[in-house]
Amino acid sequence: MIIMITPQTLKGFRDFLPQSAIKRQAFITTIRTVFERFGFDPLETPALEYAETLLGKYGDEADKLLYLFKDNGNRNVGLRYDQTVPLARVIAQYPEIVKPFKRYQIQPVWRAENTQKGRYREFLQCDADIVGDRFAPTADAEILTLFWTVYNELGFKSFKVVVNSRSLLQYVFDQTFGAGTKKEIQLDAFLKMTRSLDKLSKIGEEGVITELIERGFVKNNVENLIQTINSLKKSTYKDLEKIDKNLFYSLQMTVENFKVPEDAIVFDPTMARGLDYYTGLIFEGLDSSYHGSLGGGGRYDRLIGQFIGDDISAVGFAIGFDRSIEVAEILKLLPSKLTNTKVLVAIIEDWENVFPTALNFVSLLRSHLINTELYLNPQEPRLDKQLKYADRKGIPYVAIIGPNEVANNTITLKSLKTHTQKSMSADEIVQFFQTKP
Amino acid sequence: MIIMITPQTLKGFRDFLPQSAIKRQAFITTIRTVFERFGFDPLETPALEYAETLLGKYGDEADKLLYLFKDNGNRNVGLRYDQTVPLARVIAQYPEIVKPFKRYQIQPVWRAENTQKGRYREFLQCDADIVGDRFAPTADAEILTLFWTVYNELGFKSFKVVVNSRSLLQYVFDQTFGAGTKKEIQLDAFLKMTRSLDKLSKIGEEGVITELIERGFVKNNVENLIQTINSLKKSTYKDLEKIDKNLFYSLQMTVENFKVPEDAIVFDPTMARGLDYYTGLIFEGLDSSYHGSLGGGGRYDRLIGQFIGDDISAVGFAIGFDRSIEVAEILKLLPSKLTNTKVLVAIIEDWENVFPTALNFVSLLRSHLINTELYLNPQEPRLDKQLKYADRKGIPYVAIIGPNEVANNTITLKSLKTHTQKSMSADEIVQFFQTKP
Repeated sequence: MIIMITPQTLKGFRDFLPQSAIKRQAFITTIRTVFERFGFDPLETPALEYAETLLGKYGDEADKLLYLFKDNGNRNVGLRYDQTVPLARVIAQYPEIVKPFKRYQIQPVWRAENTQKGRYREFLQCDADIVGDRFAPTADAEILTLFWTVYNELGFKSFKVVVNSRSLLQYVFDQTFGAGTKKEIQLDAFLKMTRSLDKLSKIGEEGVITELIERGFVKNNVENLIQTINSLKKSTYKDLEKIDKNLFYSLQMTVENFKVPEDAIVFDPTMARGLDYYTGLIFEGLDSSYHGSLGGGGRYDRLIGQFIGDDISAVGFAIGFDRSIEVAEILKLLPSKLTNTKVLVAIIEDWENVFPTALNFVSLLRSHLINTELYLNPQEPRLDKQLKYADRKGIPYVAIIGPNEVANNTITLKSLKTHTQKSMSADEIVQFFQTKP
Repeated sequence: MIIMITPQTLKGFRDFLPQSAIKRQAFITTIRTVFERFGFDPLETPALEYAETLLGKYGDEADKLLYLFKDNGNRNVGLRYDQTVPLARVIAQYPEIVKPFKRYQIQPVWRAENTQKGRYREFLQCDADIVGDRFAPTADAEILTLFWTVYNELGFKSFKVVVNSRSLLQYVFDQTFGAGTKKEIQLDAFLKMTRSLDKLSKIGEEGVITELIERGFVKNNVENLIQTINSLKKSTYKDLEKIDKNLFYSLQMTVENFKVPEDAIVFDPTMARGLDYYTGLIFEGLDSSYHGSLGGGGRYDRLIGQFIGDDISAVGFAIGFDRSIEVAEILKLLPSKLTNTKVLVAIIEDWENVFPTALNFVSLLRSHLINTELYLNPQEPRLDKQLKYADRKGIPYVAIIGPNEVANNTITLKSLKTHTQKSMSADEIVQFFQTKP
């Protein structure tokens, strides 16, 4: 029965062969370690949620990107779109969870994005959130510090956290359009303003002014807005005490107590993101070698209330794992090894007589926790072929066992890096790998 | 905007709160470590595959359990059902992969199972496979040894690997029904026989005899079958040399060279599994404290050929992670901690004056890689509340900082296990956690 199928990965999805998978694993281990150091514990939720849990949480545009379908029981279900909504569902479903609840979650999410521009439809998110804190600045400072520390430990040296807050944007709005805007459309006008402002660095002052006037704002007010923004742009966090106390205190703690370098925190009064659910602090991470944000987060004190009735405060972030790892690749922050295997045990010349010794040696190395591969093809007794195999696989050492070695009770250990070799006893080889850095 | 939603996990799916997630993480770390020690490297594939990649690979019953749907681009897609078919697809898609390819894969799979009897619709599989070996017994022995070693290191003390082979079942068939069965229906008859035989321990000899006669086998032959099986059942692997050389050699290497205890390998001529794709060795793992198999595998030398045209040999297994962890729970093999956090830093009495010292101390602990939580609610200056919080969260130590501590430049470290406390300097506390086992 031969059913020939064209083997292909679905468009927008990726396979990770060992070289990539090893890098991803190293990245995840660092992120997990830093999360736990800050007192966060792991949570896992299923890939599938009820469609009604997912819909209407992220805005209309995002709803279109959800993978929704009917399951075999004819229920409307969908694939996880992020990890914040599942977290909110969990908080509502298990009232016994002690608060503040500090959890991290490292799982894939799915979005039916346009596949242009290196966007993927399955990608990993690494989230850390604090739920049910009762004094925002401290929790905000913890979250900002954690976000910066993760990237710092991943090796990013020019990483910056750009911060702003919904209340600061609201202050700007109130200063400029507030008085002239009817109550009923204030939220709508506010969101329009923030969306235009967020484009300032792309389309320039003139672009923002034109866009806002086209959208029905009064010219005078728009010019007033640009002035307000330009004056705010000169502020450091220290100037924010009178305008946004929460933001001021959290940035102060982050810098003064948690020792995040002051120049790694950049206040930007035009930055806006996720205002469908963020209620306070908003932030994102930038690196000079990438044009977009590597991840971001904020405070969302009302999302959980959609599940539970009563609002529960929350603040957190998601690391855009796939983007971050692409930048780390450019910055050469990742191990470039092809394999985790340390040594290939090669059997040469007289397979039948040599192989019991070789198998016992393989067993010895492994019992000493040394990552070992046994060359599996006894019909290939030639050493050069086995060395070439190790080289192509990226295995750094080959331990050679042939009739001579068996007779002398030795093994020849060859380094494929230095092209040197040495005859050693089995125990000496074990010791060599155990003391190697 | 309050949209009240009943928070619930989809039936057949599960959330893992920190206590469970920590256990799962510990399990995965051990499995991953052992896989790598045997020279296996990680592979990751996407959750979604083309429907045609998945269909027709596992038999008709399994096809019904696939999560299939049309994606937003109207393509027929499905969720990963196991990790073997994605592996076969990868092998076909990337001919540059050096063989033998030893890969492991630890990802969730989805099956629309009946949710009775603790079956889940999303569960984790941990697979290890060798693809493109050219001498079956050595690769088979490596795989059997790895399978046993993983469970041994997870702490299973009465774990047994039950082994059989398709060729041995074929030998039994040829000995008993072969001559009397028309060529055209031999495969069908063979599969019927193996399915009945596999139930021997459940329905007994009489049950198997009745079932096979009902299915059209001749009574004489069926009795002959039972005799053959009973005689084979008395065999150890050493008796198999004449009947199934491959099985004999691989079991010999497993026991004699790779040092798997002989009584951990149980030859059972009635065991059958996955005969839709297994072509040689088949095996499964049993523990006396669980009624079913904890995982299993075998040799499948023809599955990859369905993608690539030419057959490529392969052997491997999947660990049924969720079942295995349930048994590990019964056997108390898992850490039972509620959190990975080592210490809560509590601020008492005079929050405003104490908190800079406390925040700096939190920062110090974390810079020494100690998992630390800061108590986040400054409106709660009472120590007993903060101790209770640590206790409910399972954090073993509380570092208390109040006005006295600030004045004396000390911190009070309290153990929630022994209920003792001691006044120490910040550096002494760092040292205490660094030298704690």
